[in-house]
Amino acid sequence: MPITTPLTELLGIRHPILLAPMDTIAGSRLTRAVSEAGGFGILGGGYGDRARLQAEAAELKGFAPFGIGFITWSLAKQPELLDIALDARPQAVMLSFGDPAPFAPRIRASGARLICQVQSEDMAKQALDAGAEILIAQGTEAGGHGASRTTVDIVPAIVDLAAGHVPVVAAGGIADGRGLAAMMMLGASGVLVGTRFYASVEANGAAEAKERIRIADPNDTVRGVVPDWSRKLFWPAPFTARTLINGHIKSWTGREVELLQRADDVAGEYAAAKMAGDFEIAAVFAGEAVGLIHDIPPAAEIVERIASEAEQLLAGRRNSIASLA
Amino acid sequence: MPITTPLTELLGIRHPILLAPMDTIAGSRLTRAVSEAGGFGILGGGYGDRARLQAEAAELKGFAPFGIGFITWSLAKQPELLDIALDARPQAVMLSFGDPAPFAPRIRASGARLICQVQSEDMAKQALDAGAEILIAQGTEAGGHGASRTTVDIVPAIVDLAAGHVPVVAAGGIADGRGLAAMMMLGASGVLVGTRFYASVEANGAAEAKERIRIADPNDTVRGVVPDWSRKLFWPAPFTARTLINGHIKSWTGREVELLQRADDVAGEYAAAKMAGDFEIAAVFAGEAVGLIHDIPPAAEIVERIASEAEQLLAGRRNSIASLA
Ligand SMILES: Cc1cc2nc3c(=O)[nH]c(=O)nc-3n(C[C@H](O)[C@H](O)[C@H](O)COP(=O)(O)O)c2cc1C
Ligand SMILES: Cc1cc2nc3c(=O)[nH]c(=O)nc-3n(C[C@H](O)[C@H](O)[C@H](O)COP(=O)(O)O)c2cc1C
Repeated sequence: MPITTPLTELLGIRHPILLAPMDTIAGSRLTRAVSEAGGFGILGGGYGDRARLQAEAAELKGFAPFGIGFITWSLAKQPELLDIALDARPQAVMLSFGDPAPFAPRIRASGARLICQVQSEDMAKQALDAGAEILIAQGTEAGGHGASRTTVDIVPAIVDLAAGHVPVVAAGGIADGRGLAAMMMLGASGVLVGTRFYASVEANGAAEAKERIRIADPNDTVRGVVPDWSRKLFWPAPFTARTLINGHIKSWTGREVELLQRADDVAGEYAAAKMAGDFEIAAVFAGEAVGLIHDIPPAAEIVERIASEAEQLLAGRRNSIASLA
Repeated sequence: MPITTPLTELLGIRHPILLAPMDTIAGSRLTRAVSEAGGFGILGGGYGDRARLQAEAAELKGFAPFGIGFITWSLAKQPELLDIALDARPQAVMLSFGDPAPFAPRIRASGARLICQVQSEDMAKQALDAGAEILIAQGTEAGGHGASRTTVDIVPAIVDLAAGHVPVVAAGGIADGRGLAAMMMLGASGVLVGTRFYASVEANGAAEAKERIRIADPNDTVRGVVPDWSRKLFWPAPFTARTLINGHIKSWTGREVELLQRADDVAGEYAAAKMAGDFEIAAVFAGEAVGLIHDIPPAAEIVERIASEAEQLLAGRRNSIASLA
């Protein structure tokens, strides 16, 4: 029996599983695949590449349901990108990492649901004040950008704060049905999943990046500023990025001051490595869930596995599973 | 309906809730209170204070069930303390932070169950090789000593590694029934709870320390070496301690090298502050669960609340709770 929650009802979806709007990794193909499997695909809005957004959004026009996600502080520099997004008529727009208030009215006027990803109680309050209809509580385990509070800490904290007014979705470290079921016990109405979908057939990532995620151990990721500063990308506090550890990250972690001093040189080297697909220098953004990822299946299979494992656990298969021990 | 798991069966307890052997905080009074409420009390073995251990263990002789917990690397310096513990005939001995192999045979020969707390897969393998009958997977959210992996990361990893051979108990950040239910979904057979029991009537802590836990926000704890080095206590890697942030922690964090250089002076000041109950200098060991703690009830009430909330969630009350949102 499918899991019904306030989230599935609000978005009209079969499974309470959202695809994280991973910058260029979550393209229209992955977005579509997740939604077609009964989840909710969210296209990554990226860092302001207008042509790419236009092309990807055009692919989704007329399709339903789907969302588009923006990095709020980046969108603030090119607010017109929101028009391109809304023109594709997404059922939801997701904003992360910054004040959603300037964009909330246009989003809500379009009829799209406003989803806000938050990393603290203060950000949650700001999002609710702006009219957020779904909150995503993101833990530090997450791949890509985030902050320092853990999933087990931040999810119940935001659930208590939302106090039944809006559904809360858990993000950070979730890659299987155990994670979905656990988050529901903490009071979440669903999960937002990034890293697990990166290692899927439809993700817009290099084959080698996906393979690195597949073979990584949970100790193989780290959160810091090196991947951003190496691109001369300066995120505001409290945000840092979690990536796989590679040679470049190892050599610069702890030497951030010098990295900043040499930012021009490093950025050149970094950009070249990215073009060349050299992942000992270019970062693979991924979270602690890499420890749970051992294959690169189609996205639909990932949705099915997470949903059916969680359904079984929540239906009481827990007991028979526990009795193995 | 009480939650039955391999853990409750193995230890013969009503609720899958273990009291963490918090050094001097988990004395015989708290141990007894948790066991009498249907959980499993574990007396803190402390740092080698023989007279205290003798007195506390004597209080528990003849009582059942209960356990005694040791800091393994500390016990290795005074292995005879294990005899004092075993003489009280505990139903279990818990070892954390070090190789359990040298002590495992005597523990198992006594008929006590061997419980090992671990922070990585390698430690879990070492514990299983030594004959551990219960593994505790401890996340970085935990109060007191621990390592860096989060609860959401380490619990499924250890569950997969134990693969049904021994029950796995989750520790770190659990303070309510949501946490217990969530950990069961991740495959754990129960939880080990520290910080929540510190803020109980029966805990051996100063009233002010309990009050500081009660009013703390989840952001008010930090993990590091300052509280140990300030006592000239040098824990082996990868272990650090999570405490409430106070003036002393704030002023020395980031200046650990200097702290070590001035260790003699600081240790004098620290010891005096501890004697005087000055908690702006002396550390209160506590975890991220402080965010979920708002009162200081009797331990039995804590056990009852956690158990009944988890029972309701696992029995499907989840749906009615979710439908509030
Ligand atoms: C490769 C990658 C790129 C990401 N890019 C974005 C982004 O552009 N915008 C955003 O809101 N979140 C981004 N995130 C974070 C996700 O929204 C989400 O919080 C995270 O993936 C959840 O944790 P998980 O990776 O453990 O599933 C990214 C995550 C990854 C792994
Ligand atoms: C005040 C305090 C003292 C602790 N002392 C010990 C100890 O002596 N031995 C030990 O194995 N664990 C000790 N711990 C860690 C616990 O075993 C356990 O992992 C932790 O309390 C679980 O996380 P929680 O505090 O969020 O419940 C201590 C924890 C606290 C809060």
